[in-house]
Amino acid sequence: MNQPHADLDTFRRALPEALGSALRERFDERFSVAQAVRDHHGRDESPFPAAPPDAVVYVNDTAEVVELVRLCRLHKVPLIPFGVGSSLEGALLAVQGGISVDLSGMNRIVAIHPEDLTATVQAGVTRKQLNDALKDTGIFFPIDPGADATLGGMTATRASGTNAVRYGTMRENVLALEVVTADAKVLRTGTRARKSSAGYDLTRLLVGSEGTLGIVTEVTVRLYPQPEAISAAVVSFGSIEGAVNTAIQTIQVGVPVARCEFLDEATVRAINAYAKTSLREATTLFFEFHGTEASVREQSDTVEQIARDNGGQDFEWATRPEERTRLWNARHNAYFACLQVRPGCRAISTDTCVPISRLADSLIGARAILDRATVPTMILGHVGDGNFHAVILVNPEDPAEMAECERLNDEIVRLALSMDGTCTGEHGIGLHKMGFLCEEAGEDAVELMRRIKNALDPDHIMNPGKIFRA
Amino acid sequence: MNQPHADLDTFRRALPEALGSALRERFDERFSVAQAVRDHHGRDESPFPAAPPDAVVYVNDTAEVVELVRLCRLHKVPLIPFGVGSSLEGALLAVQGGISVDLSGMNRIVAIHPEDLTATVQAGVTRKQLNDALKDTGIFFPIDPGADATLGGMTATRASGTNAVRYGTMRENVLALEVVTADAKVLRTGTRARKSSAGYDLTRLLVGSEGTLGIVTEVTVRLYPQPEAISAAVVSFGSIEGAVNTAIQTIQVGVPVARCEFLDEATVRAINAYAKTSLREATTLFFEFHGTEASVREQSDTVEQIARDNGGQDFEWATRPEERTRLWNARHNAYFACLQVRPGCRAISTDTCVPISRLADSLIGARAILDRATVPTMILGHVGDGNFHAVILVNPEDPAEMAECERLNDEIVRLALSMDGTCTGEHGIGLHKMGFLCEEAGEDAVELMRRIKNALDPDHIMNPGKIFRA
Repeated sequence: MNQPHADLDTFRRALPEALGSALRERFDERFSVAQAVRDHHGRDESPFPAAPPDAVVYVNDTAEVVELVRLCRLHKVPLIPFGVGSSLEGALLAVQGGISVDLSGMNRIVAIHPEDLTATVQAGVTRKQLNDALKDTGIFFPIDPGADATLGGMTATRASGTNAVRYGTMRENVLALEVVTADAKVLRTGTRARKSSAGYDLTRLLVGSEGTLGIVTEVTVRLYPQPEAISAAVVSFGSIEGAVNTAIQTIQVGVPVARCEFLDEATVRAINAYAKTSLREATTLFFEFHGTEASVREQSDTVEQIARDNGGQDFEWATRPEERTRLWNARHNAYFACLQVRPGCRAISTDTCVPISRLADSLIGARAILDRATVPTMILGHVGDGNFHAVILVNPEDPAEMAECERLNDEIVRLALSMDGTCTGEHGIGLHKMGFLCEEAGEDAVELMRRIKNALDPDHIMNPGKIFRA
Repeated sequence: MNQPHADLDTFRRALPEALGSALRERFDERFSVAQAVRDHHGRDESPFPAAPPDAVVYVNDTAEVVELVRLCRLHKVPLIPFGVGSSLEGALLAVQGGISVDLSGMNRIVAIHPEDLTATVQAGVTRKQLNDALKDTGIFFPIDPGADATLGGMTATRASGTNAVRYGTMRENVLALEVVTADAKVLRTGTRARKSSAGYDLTRLLVGSEGTLGIVTEVTVRLYPQPEAISAAVVSFGSIEGAVNTAIQTIQVGVPVARCEFLDEATVRAINAYAKTSLREATTLFFEFHGTEASVREQSDTVEQIARDNGGQDFEWATRPEERTRLWNARHNAYFACLQVRPGCRAISTDTCVPISRLADSLIGARAILDRATVPTMILGHVGDGNFHAVILVNPEDPAEMAECERLNDEIVRLALSMDGTCTGEHGIGLHKMGFLCEEAGEDAVELMRRIKNALDPDHIMNPGKIFRA
């Protein structure tokens, strides 16, 4: 399992010479076979060995993507869309060779419609770039995975983040897409209307398809009015149980909390070291409340009471915007902070999500599994959704550690599946979780996915070898 | 267009004798070819001529659906799932003959998990039945189309209703499905986790597929805590503009209104006559606010101010539960009230939905189009979503009226499409809007839907002839 794609290398063949010439001619210096460029595009934030593409093409617009797909299709050469390279599951690795399609140059904000609370952006726009563009409009885009990912990448993995508990994930927030299909057609799925019953939901089919059904070139998302009032709070607990039960009860009573994040003691310690914060090193919940002044006060009073009933220490409020920014930056960098605990290591991050009532069993069960680990581990996550990440720090060169890590990961996933949960709340299947997908969804459901793939991409040129085996 | 399926009758052939015998043997008196039973299953709330199935089978459980699909598949005979028959777009008409699969006997509440805010029900459970079962739990299921539809039917059409502005549609609220595929396999899509990135979103692909990709047998939905406080209000306006602009501004400032319904003067008159209410006969908005006592007060103060700025008359509050029930029952029966305005008539209901900033242009434009009608017309709808229905009352026996009605419908839909809207917010495509779907999504997107259909149902036995032509 430490080389989940080793057996797929048999598919790999050299880039056809005719294709190389055609691409060079068409894209000039935006076509590259330089080793450094290929290496950069053949790895991501996953712990898997790099699998560089045969070449990289930097595209500037949808018409270029169409041309590129047309050429690759002729030669049946794979295309792997690439944003900022923040996949955690190996979705970007060129396990069957082919062309990495770097969309970072397609970073134009196409349209912002504050009056409709929608924005349309090219796939290479990152979430921070979009929010910067919205700065003076009084509206914002809530979805915030840890990395400053592109909207295209976030669409591909059905990403979410800390705000999903209130605002939903990419599933709920992508209204429409522009996509280039395997037969080099440009489709628009969906409209800017908030709801529709017009035929099959191609938008939702593409969201989460990890580039295997087409290359997303434009994304239209929902936006939200900036809340009149925001407050954030940090509360620490003497036990994991107290923190988790606070999260569960907050959701069950229906507090419309905007963020509810869990960090175990090891994570807080890593953050303090990395971000120079001075958080109390204990099991901790970060909260954020959005609403009117009165409703934020009501929400926080309710949650403070729940926390107190569960042994929570005093709430520490982060009321000034710069304090809140510091807090949430620390949270967003938690994954990178954890990596620093063991220099040179890589991390495997579990990503299970369970029904909220099973969160305590799932998270405390995971902690018990991790307590047997010989390598450093942390737990953090979006507990308001029932989703958390066990971060396992490994030396990727050490087969015994990698094997141990996969065993821990397996146990944590199986525990979640036994609770009617999912093996991935927000990171995707990529290369790593194909086996778990079969267990979770069943072989018949995976076969149905395979039939859809075959119908839409019969030559398997769209990011082949991901999500399920052909 | 008054017989949208006339040309499809060529597909129709008699029920194979061997299939009839096998079904009679297996299902006994739950297999029927009686004319009255077939007639009942061959019409719906659409204005289209009946197209009865060749037979009706009343199924009791998923295993029976599997057997039925297996038999029909052998003989390549169509299957049309049937709940309560409330389709407005002809989705239930057996335009290619076949078996109507009556799921009303599959009306078991499988599981309620108040601690997770989820419920799993068989497809024949209706929305009112589910809420009755939830009565003492403090939680509820919000999606409420006008009819007391089944959860299976609501899944098939991606239904919504008056609460969608706050709680979303079936798209957002179906977590998981059990479905019998065209090759008679039982699949489970999704889990009870709130979010997942595990492979293609088969759940969302099936939601809105109108029975063309499989027969939904079980539905798992999200539930919500009953709000601590609810208040409802009625406000009337001297102009359509005032009402529509109130709705638009309410959404734009981000009031989390639970319901925001528009009724024009003709609709209010029809409701007063039908439901014996005494509402002021003018352009009217119905509102409902959910939250804590304080937040409901804040929301209603904000909306009252917006309404006043737009020429709204005094708010009339319906604070007692029985007043509210009376109000919303009147709203839910509005479609049937409109039908009574012209005894013996049928209604064509438009269903456009546009980005919120275009609602005024779209609705006032529709009113101008309808002002030229020779038949009675009304407008009502879920304006907080940008969705409204023009109800056009026609004598279905009068070809000139039907033609006029289709012209009006065409114009209203084209207006919405020109505003980046959709031809159907919640009723589905059925038979009626296949042409509009091509205009809205484009031929290439429809071709992609067709490929998915062919991949999942190669013999076209699942409700054939709906959404798009084969």
